[in-house]
Amino acid sequence: MENINIGILGYGVVGAGVAKLLKQKQQLLESRIGAVLNLKAIADIDTTTDRGIDLGTTALVSDANLIIDDPKINIIVETIGGETIARQFILRSLENKKHVVTANKALLAAFGNDLVTTARKNQVDLAFEASCGGCMPIIKCLRESLVANDIRSMSAILNGTCNYILTKISKDGSNFEDALKDAQKLGYAEADPSLDIDGFDTAHKLAILNALAHGMEINLKDIHVEGIRNITPVDIEFARSFGYTIKLLAIGKIHEDHVEARVHPTMIPDSNPLSHVDTSMNAIAIDADATGQTMLYGHGAGMMPTASAVLSDIADIARNIISGTKRRVPILGYAEDNIKPIQILPMEELYTRYYLRFEAQDHPGVLAKISGVLGENSISIKSVHQKGRKSNGKVPVVMITHIAKEAWVQKALKQILKTDSVVGRPIVIRIEETDRE
Amino acid sequence: MENINIGILGYGVVGAGVAKLLKQKQQLLESRIGAVLNLKAIADIDTTTDRGIDLGTTALVSDANLIIDDPKINIIVETIGGETIARQFILRSLENKKHVVTANKALLAAFGNDLVTTARKNQVDLAFEASCGGCMPIIKCLRESLVANDIRSMSAILNGTCNYILTKISKDGSNFEDALKDAQKLGYAEADPSLDIDGFDTAHKLAILNALAHGMEINLKDIHVEGIRNITPVDIEFARSFGYTIKLLAIGKIHEDHVEARVHPTMIPDSNPLSHVDTSMNAIAIDADATGQTMLYGHGAGMMPTASAVLSDIADIARNIISGTKRRVPILGYAEDNIKPIQILPMEELYTRYYLRFEAQDHPGVLAKISGVLGENSISIKSVHQKGRKSNGKVPVVMITHIAKEAWVQKALKQILKTDSVVGRPIVIRIEETDRE
Repeated sequence: MENINIGILGYGVVGAGVAKLLKQKQQLLESRIGAVLNLKAIADIDTTTDRGIDLGTTALVSDANLIIDDPKINIIVETIGGETIARQFILRSLENKKHVVTANKALLAAFGNDLVTTARKNQVDLAFEASCGGCMPIIKCLRESLVANDIRSMSAILNGTCNYILTKISKDGSNFEDALKDAQKLGYAEADPSLDIDGFDTAHKLAILNALAHGMEINLKDIHVEGIRNITPVDIEFARSFGYTIKLLAIGKIHEDHVEARVHPTMIPDSNPLSHVDTSMNAIAIDADATGQTMLYGHGAGMMPTASAVLSDIADIARNIISGTKRRVPILGYAEDNIKPIQILPMEELYTRYYLRFEAQDHPGVLAKISGVLGENSISIKSVHQKGRKSNGKVPVVMITHIAKEAWVQKALKQILKTDSVVGRPIVIRIEETDRE
Repeated sequence: MENINIGILGYGVVGAGVAKLLKQKQQLLESRIGAVLNLKAIADIDTTTDRGIDLGTTALVSDANLIIDDPKINIIVETIGGETIARQFILRSLENKKHVVTANKALLAAFGNDLVTTARKNQVDLAFEASCGGCMPIIKCLRESLVANDIRSMSAILNGTCNYILTKISKDGSNFEDALKDAQKLGYAEADPSLDIDGFDTAHKLAILNALAHGMEINLKDIHVEGIRNITPVDIEFARSFGYTIKLLAIGKIHEDHVEARVHPTMIPDSNPLSHVDTSMNAIAIDADATGQTMLYGHGAGMMPTASAVLSDIADIARNIISGTKRRVPILGYAEDNIKPIQILPMEELYTRYYLRFEAQDHPGVLAKISGVLGENSISIKSVHQKGRKSNGKVPVVMITHIAKEAWVQKALKQILKTDSVVGRPIVIRIEETDRE
């Protein structure tokens, strides 16, 4: 039976998960792939900490170059993370004609196009199933299963930390700070949680998925990103009363000549299957022209779910090697010269529906003033809701708009802030009624 | 650019969907696969009906042998259905060294092992993504994405007709007959709906999925099958009051040395994501050891969703051909000599929880008699529920049991029927609390 030699760079949580699966599932993998997946070496600056895995004959080295330059190694798995060393190591591995598997979404979102070009130039594979959606086979689904579909839209819950916090606020009425502390205690959120809760991690994943879904280059910088710091139990309660749930969604929709690509808290109706995706679970809903609505659901992070996705990439490459082929599926799902220069719609051009919550002064005429400004800006109001009466003379006023342009809404909100009708910045949450309105 | 020649056998709904996608998406497919997918010919006994598809240079012939024996054709798509002609045509195609794509679950469930053997012997591929779960990439997921996982269990809604009927009864309180008529009017159910509503179609799919998930041969005959004819609004109402939903589930669970494989109406708690899968939608929940719980959701049938899955198989085979390889992934996911002789657990050996509904005589002592018989058979009762009082002197009595053995339950029910305590056969619905109890 043929031997496929594998090296892992980075022996942290994900690296250890990959090592564990390669060791524990050796027999299963042989019976499914028809080759021996031999973990030849792991590199990490820390070669002493016991990760609880029996490495057998696998070498644990501190110098990554021993792996990158080893002529016997076929596949290199990068599980270091970050955008500096990981990038250099991947580029050198590709230049050394190694196939590379990575879970590094931040790196792919920022420098993925370069990495893809380098892989193409060196005629090797670059695989990244674990970069988006953890164990869900979303990359394979977009590149292979939906091959005959035009993807009309994707909407996805791609960050378990945010989804855990939103679920916690929703179920327990916790405020954001307490829910975050709880997530940190449970290990769902980092000590510095900004990458997660400010939406950047979700945006990294959307940049990758958009490229695969729509046949475009990876474009992170034009994605509009908002996080969940401003979500309060009050908004979640209002949402519930309208039959909505608030989720941090990644939204990618194709139009004639551009895509919408945005990450922000979003109200979705209970009929949307994403509304039932709770705790730290992830899900991606895809609306494609032949399949219609479809959804994947699963753990978006964690040691073993991520390792499972890395292993599916390793298996794909190993099956290519023993079949005498490589680069069987284009890295971004489309042949190089078919990747289209699709632009992302500037956020101010977006048309959607809005939930607006104002802390309004409890004076006569305030409602008329707010609605007046919205009307002057072509924003028509579907419904107005007022609940409770605060002791300090301010009342929460919620307005649901019909479809309006983002630029109009932002302009109107600025004008309203300048009046003495409201206190503090209004809360703006966009509403996704269905994937095709 | 290389030409891959395709022939379709059977120009019905699915065949026409495949032809439509091949024609409409020619450019997309070229840009993703790097080959021209040329629909060379379609065979059907009806060569005159207009299916509304511009066939261009594609021949429409009445003699399937013109396709099966055409040396230029690489891939044959069987969309005839049934187990007689389709089987002969597939066997002859495989013997002619053609790769075959089929959506024919009834055929695969009954004769799949033979077809797999013939494909192996002739060194060609046999692909069937469209046979289970319509557009959901469940076959690819089991064979490729979950390659490093042991699948602990699957539970799935695999028949849109049944799920539509159960949803209809649940939402509108319709009885079974009316809901079925409604499904027939909407085209979800056949004039003879037995294959769907008696659970056989679901069992066909479970036989295929079990083989892929657990590395065993396709085994239809030992799957326990019950349909949904006896489900009433009363049971759905009781289920709801306990926080359960009733779904027709295909269940496949691995144990030490056997699998559970059963199809029957099942009560699942609202926390199970399958409970939110409504109307004609399908879903499959998989619990695997590395990924944990994961789920696919989508249209399980219909012209274009099914065609989309067929196209993903065609693309896989086309990518193999242009990469100079074939049979890259074993047909059943495991190398031939690794397929294990796993037995299906006889139904009477099953341990699970039960919902039992009796039409009890409204006499004193009846409840004691029923519970007495259950107790004598080692079945312990978790709760007893009685709602309403019927005018004809009978009352519905519902009992929820703790985990009990199927054989005990069947024996106890026979004994209870022999007493004068109840009228008519009791309703028995098994409960799945979680995938791992």
